Amino acid sequence: MIYLHERLAADTVTIGRLQLSRLLLVDNRLWRWLILVPVRPEVTEIYQLSPDDRSLLIEEIAAVSQAMTSLFAPHKLNIGALGNLVPQLHIHVVARYRDDPAWPNPVWGAGLSERYSSEALTDLRLRLGKYLGAQTVDDS
Amino acid sequence: MIYLHERLAADTVTIGRLQLSRLLLVDNRLWRWLILVPVRPEVTEIYQLSPDDRSLLIEEIAAVSQAMTSLFAPHKLNIGALGNLVPQLHIHVVARYRDDPAWPNPVWGAGLSERYSSEALTDLRLRLGKYLGAQTVDDS
Repeated sequence: MIYLHERLAADTVTIGRLQLSRLLLVDNRLWRWLILVPVRPEVTEIYQLSPDDRSLLIEEIAAVSQAMTSLFAPHKLNIGALGNLVPQLHIHVVARYRDDPAWPNPVWGAGLSERYSSEALTDLRLRLGKYLGAQTVDDS
Repeated sequence: MIYLHERLAADTVTIGRLQLSRLLLVDNRLWRWLILVPVRPEVTEIYQLSPDDRSLLIEEIAAVSQAMTSLFAPHKLNIGALGNLVPQLHIHVVARYRDDPAWPNPVWGAGLSERYSSEALTDLRLRLGKYLGAQTVDDS
């Protein structure tokens, strides 16, 4: 399997694999929150990716954004590459609503988290994976 | 001139124009903080840009990131497209340090701001504009 930082693995489930990135769903039912992790474990900043990888990345950000928009109708998307706590490059795509618990502040650092039920988590993972044509990841 | 949301204009100075975006410097000396504003005033989300514009945008993010890294040697870059308060699409590129006043939280929503001196602002604006080959913007 491709390396995934333990803090990313702990709070997420894997939806599947896109061309460049592994796609994760954050196990926090307060927000619809996905994370793209380009499978380049040594890279910490977007500018360190090759131009071809950057091109794939922005298209995957767009595809995930469109999926979120179609499935969840957010008022706004928040996209961020921070990495202050987890250096492995990863890009957050978060569906935001004007009545969500952190609006208009960012979700990062808000310290609010509630786990999904396992049924809800499985349902979301399957719907998003199907919408995006994500490939199953073998973590065995 | 190209439309710029009044809240973006109020807290920034313009460094210049790149191929797709106007480049702004945030007038907050607590962080080295730039903002890319694609000159597509009707667009609020990255996925709404054309594929060609998205390609230009990720390359401008990379170029600005490299300039920040060369000039300011940050510990980490934080890149974000939020727009919860200002809908016009704009992308933040912020140089972060492990001893800065908000670390490891985001700068967005931290509510910390101190203006530069006019000399410092002019110096930074010129150095960044020169490094990035930004074109002068005529705001008359």
